[in-house]
Amino acid sequence: MKKVRIGIIGMGRIGKIHYDNLKNKVENTEVVSFSDPFFKESLEIPNLEVEALVSCKEVDAVIICSPTNTHADYISLCAKHKKDVFCEKPHDLSLPRVIESLQEVKAAGIKLMLGFNRRFDPNFLKIKKLVMDGKIGEPFLIKITSRDPAPPSLSYLKSSGGMFLDMTIHDFDMARYIMGKEVTEVYAVGGAFVSEDVISANDIDIATVTLKFEDNTMALIDNSRKAVYGYDQRLEVFGSGGMAKAENNNHDTHTLYNEIGAHSSLPLDFFMDRYTSSYLNEIKSFINSIVLGTNVSVTGEDGFQALKIGIAAGISIRENRPVKINEINQLQSIL
Amino acid sequence: MKKVRIGIIGMGRIGKIHYDNLKNKVENTEVVSFSDPFFKESLEIPNLEVEALVSCKEVDAVIICSPTNTHADYISLCAKHKKDVFCEKPHDLSLPRVIESLQEVKAAGIKLMLGFNRRFDPNFLKIKKLVMDGKIGEPFLIKITSRDPAPPSLSYLKSSGGMFLDMTIHDFDMARYIMGKEVTEVYAVGGAFVSEDVISANDIDIATVTLKFEDNTMALIDNSRKAVYGYDQRLEVFGSGGMAKAENNNHDTHTLYNEIGAHSSLPLDFFMDRYTSSYLNEIKSFINSIVLGTNVSVTGEDGFQALKIGIAAGISIRENRPVKINEINQLQSIL
Amino acid sequence: MKKVRIGIIGMGRIGKIHYDNLKNKVENTEVVSFSDPFFKESLEIPNLEVEALVSCKEVDAVIICSPTNTHADYISLCAKHKKDVFCEKPHDLSLPRVIESLQEVKAAGIKLMLGFNRRFDPNFLKIKKLVMDGKIGEPFLIKITSRDPAPPSLSYLKSSGGMFLDMTIHDFDMARYIMGKEVTEVYAVGGAFVSEDVISANDIDIATVTLKFEDNTMALIDNSRKAVYGYDQRLEVFGSGGMAKAENNNHDTHTLYNEIGAHSSLPLDFFMDRYTSSYLNEIKSFINSIVLGTNVSVTGEDGFQALKIGIAAGISIRENRPVKINEINQLQSIL
Amino acid sequence: MKKVRIGIIGMGRIGKIHYDNLKNKVENTEVVSFSDPFFKESLEIPNLEVEALVSCKEVDAVIICSPTNTHADYISLCAKHKKDVFCEKPHDLSLPRVIESLQEVKAAGIKLMLGFNRRFDPNFLKIKKLVMDGKIGEPFLIKITSRDPAPPSLSYLKSSGGMFLDMTIHDFDMARYIMGKEVTEVYAVGGAFVSEDVISANDIDIATVTLKFEDNTMALIDNSRKAVYGYDQRLEVFGSGGMAKAENNNHDTHTLYNEIGAHSSLPLDFFMDRYTSSYLNEIKSFINSIVLGTNVSVTGEDGFQALKIGIAAGISIRENRPVKINEINQLQSIL
Repeated sequence: MKKVRIGIIGMGRIGKIHYDNLKNKVENTEVVSFSDPFFKESLEIPNLEVEALVSCKEVDAVIICSPTNTHADYISLCAKHKKDVFCEKPHDLSLPRVIESLQEVKAAGIKLMLGFNRRFDPNFLKIKKLVMDGKIGEPFLIKITSRDPAPPSLSYLKSSGGMFLDMTIHDFDMARYIMGKEVTEVYAVGGAFVSEDVISANDIDIATVTLKFEDNTMALIDNSRKAVYGYDQRLEVFGSGGMAKAENNNHDTHTLYNEIGAHSSLPLDFFMDRYTSSYLNEIKSFINSIVLGTNVSVTGEDGFQALKIGIAAGISIRENRPVKINEINQLQSIL
Repeated sequence: MKKVRIGIIGMGRIGKIHYDNLKNKVENTEVVSFSDPFFKESLEIPNLEVEALVSCKEVDAVIICSPTNTHADYISLCAKHKKDVFCEKPHDLSLPRVIESLQEVKAAGIKLMLGFNRRFDPNFLKIKKLVMDGKIGEPFLIKITSRDPAPPSLSYLKSSGGMFLDMTIHDFDMARYIMGKEVTEVYAVGGAFVSEDVISANDIDIATVTLKFEDNTMALIDNSRKAVYGYDQRLEVFGSGGMAKAENNNHDTHTLYNEIGAHSSLPLDFFMDRYTSSYLNEIKSFINSIVLGTNVSVTGEDGFQALKIGIAAGISIRENRPVKINEINQLQSIL
Repeated sequence: MKKVRIGIIGMGRIGKIHYDNLKNKVENTEVVSFSDPFFKESLEIPNLEVEALVSCKEVDAVIICSPTNTHADYISLCAKHKKDVFCEKPHDLSLPRVIESLQEVKAAGIKLMLGFNRRFDPNFLKIKKLVMDGKIGEPFLIKITSRDPAPPSLSYLKSSGGMFLDMTIHDFDMARYIMGKEVTEVYAVGGAFVSEDVISANDIDIATVTLKFEDNTMALIDNSRKAVYGYDQRLEVFGSGGMAKAENNNHDTHTLYNEIGAHSSLPLDFFMDRYTSSYLNEIKSFINSIVLGTNVSVTGEDGFQALKIGIAAGISIRENRPVKINEINQLQSIL
Repeated sequence: MKKVRIGIIGMGRIGKIHYDNLKNKVENTEVVSFSDPFFKESLEIPNLEVEALVSCKEVDAVIICSPTNTHADYISLCAKHKKDVFCEKPHDLSLPRVIESLQEVKAAGIKLMLGFNRRFDPNFLKIKKLVMDGKIGEPFLIKITSRDPAPPSLSYLKSSGGMFLDMTIHDFDMARYIMGKEVTEVYAVGGAFVSEDVISANDIDIATVTLKFEDNTMALIDNSRKAVYGYDQRLEVFGSGGMAKAENNNHDTHTLYNEIGAHSSLPLDFFMDRYTSSYLNEIKSFINSIVLGTNVSVTGEDGFQALKIGIAAGISIRENRPVKINEINQLQSIL
């Protein structure tokens, strides 16, 4: 079988994860080049300019792990050169640019997969399957807790698009994914509680978001940029026939019992440990969709919907009112 | 020591719990009479008219377990006759009547304790203690899940004041109690999903409520009138120094492992099993406050605040907007 | 219905538990007298000599909670006066006296129930039911952990009959009860590790016991007179179709997560808290067997078998070899 | 830094694990050849005769994953050619051959590490650390449960040396490792309960073993060749200051609550999933000991002691008596 030849744009933390997975753990594929002006290690493959990488005939598909504000442009470039694309979330911070590049993707007939890796986590996959199989009946409410162990750097924060587009966007996607329904309205509250840098970046670091779906069922999301006890990633879905929940993955399974209590391990505290298998499953899924000629499992539309929810959440918190996704749709039609 | 002589108004489920606890498990007290026109069993104490019971010289304190719409009137009566009162939640559905009767209580100098029994549950007491002792640092967010096993009867629903005043009011009180702060704003969403009767009663049966406290910290509450897996009563508090949570009490501690999975017990499914010790601790606390001449642990003001939050939640869901508690204060000043 | 009139011999900790349960929580019964020369509180019922209590016409059944070395004699006395008996474990430390009194019980046609209260604990009842219902297939191995929070007093230790007859006897009974088979061989190891008093009493305080059942399936028991983390009472059964286990009952369901770990509650640390419901269920079962004229649920034979296992365990540890129950049977035939 | 050049003898399941780990996940090393007459895949490294592999100048160290009955011979060969050795457990089934080859290892001054990979499992490492740090005080009792999901093939069983030397030997090592003490006496019971093949192989498939350590503290081990609910690998240590236990690693962290109960995932059911990180940590430790010139973490002596316990367990079950390790020492002196 012919191998899928991959070029990776951006060899930061996430780019490196994809590189290692593709190199050592995914069949039918080969990383042939990358592009990262700041990457100094030797990788035995050439470090090219983006344009050169995308236009190269030896490249079948491109993985975009560069800063968010380049995503839409590089997607457009891939469309131009008819290369399939896997793009890290979010698609872009600019709604018009997202729409434009989605149209180019469609016109070019290339594949575009968005990097919502958590969909591929074994815990959340199990919950999705239980919901799909009707094990909790009709789902009424999904609750997602997502708390980082520590806030990112100030420089990262400044270009992140804000907590809702950088962090909560994973949860917006998860809510849509698990419930299998579209969100129609968003209400958000929050503030800057745990990080000085967040205040400098004019951002928030703790927030709760209420989502309404099209059938009036609900989601409750709570986020924090900092949790001293580790990376807290849980969810539960409540329905007419039961409830399903996913707990954290911990460092180990020990418990110590002594005179003062029972003591056990904390959650894994870094996203690369916590989501090791989800990153691998995700990129396997992308390669498979190319090899088998099937649809990607996380579409451009998925990224677009999550983005709109994130924008609505930002308006909600600024204006202290529930915001309808339709308002964003109208906004987009004006742009 | 002289015993505290108690009269109980209303010998329904809750009245009977207080009666049994006072009779068999609380020291320094004696139930001397009760009032319930529909109660047919023999209890070896006289069944009196309410007026007769409250005015009786042999009664030191009155426990009000009659329907909600009688609470304020009976509290007024107790104030008139200078009898200390323990009143089941909520105080009343009418804000003016609550205010009036609180003024009478104050003028009469009697004790008034509200029946928020969950404050006395060992799990939630432990969480309160952890928060008070600074074990989670500064608390930013409290999340409360409260789901009943099955909806009440249509007749109950019709006179209940609606889910927020009948059921969520426990959670409003719990949020204030654990966080030790006042609520300033309320946003609620919900609908009728699980019960035909709820629709007939023009009520809702699943809802989520977002509370803002005075310092912009938050609460997320979710309720359901029906959970097929039992009585789901959990909470967690997240803060700068950690997180504390309380899980359900289950039927037993077994787990069965077989070819298809690991299987264990469900939560206790009836409030009388789940909150056995909280009801006992609560009424002991009331008796103690009389015996020792100390303040009651759950005040009329506590009941009043919870009621205002409940009223705000009702407005929020009808008008689909966040509602400030100040609006209720202004409302009350007009009344 | 005529009430079962009870006399209680011995009003120590256990006697008081039975008294309170019978008085407040068991229907169709009445405690009419007790016998305890050292009991000074007033109980509103007469404190009689043992002979007077047992022979009294107003007494239908006797509950024996006096020191172990009196059990067989008082059982004989009850047989003489045709009174049904509930006797705390163990039946007696003397095998001939046990046999003799069992013969008298049989000849008199009275009921004799042994106080193996743990059979009535909801956790262990659930395990028994799972095993009986075939949920784990054919049971091959039962493992029982039973550790006390702290050793008893030296005076108690001296008259206790040793750890195997005083403490492990509960586990011997539990192993027979859950597995539904007879034990044929016993191997024990252990020593005095945690208590000076235990050394003075020439006893052991930590031991493990291996039992073989008639079909060569097995039990592993481990005991300690002291566990600093509380009263540890767990078991598991492994079979051809799965495994079932019962965990401890804890003080509450909280977990605190902070920088150093996740911290939760310890097991309930006193047998009266841990086995509250088992004591109640046990005595209800006894009263029911009298009211309904049915067989008792824990028989004299059950007590006798557990006693023989305990005696065999003592020989095993002294002689460092597996000991067959048949050896005890032969021993008994010589006596 | 010069890389440690490795030759692997035996490219079965375990050999392949070491190969993959060394190739992709361990620094400072390189697999340069292997020897396996039955291995047909292409690995880009030469498949040599054993003698050629061991004697090759390009090989610094040898990993022995061939059938047990070749281990001692290949260790001798490595000693002859002064190659460091990592050898899978057990060292050999023949005590004289073990002793002989250990003497050759010593004389040659090569490193010999035994493949007790479970010592490197994060759960058990944590327990070891807790014990070493005195967190449970003086350890009195270790309990180890080790149950395989399904019995091996008849052919494997026939050359395995029996359950004690093939399977329980891991637990014998674990008991010594965690407790940090030598075993002095062994008592085993068991039988063939779950597998027809085991009967054909004249072996047992369920057993419990009681170990006494030099200070009379104890171990309880229970094994089964088959557990329908997966690979059950737990242990607990009880001591004067507390208790520490390690639970299984499960497939995921979900729980489903419905009308009939709470349902969650089973243990990982294959040793390669369960012990992924322990195999990696183990081989890293071996490579490190060569690179840094330090002692290996699991010595030939460790393998020898575990083997003697296993032989004693076999005698114990045949002769139905406790067997002292000294008996094996005397046996060995006769050989």
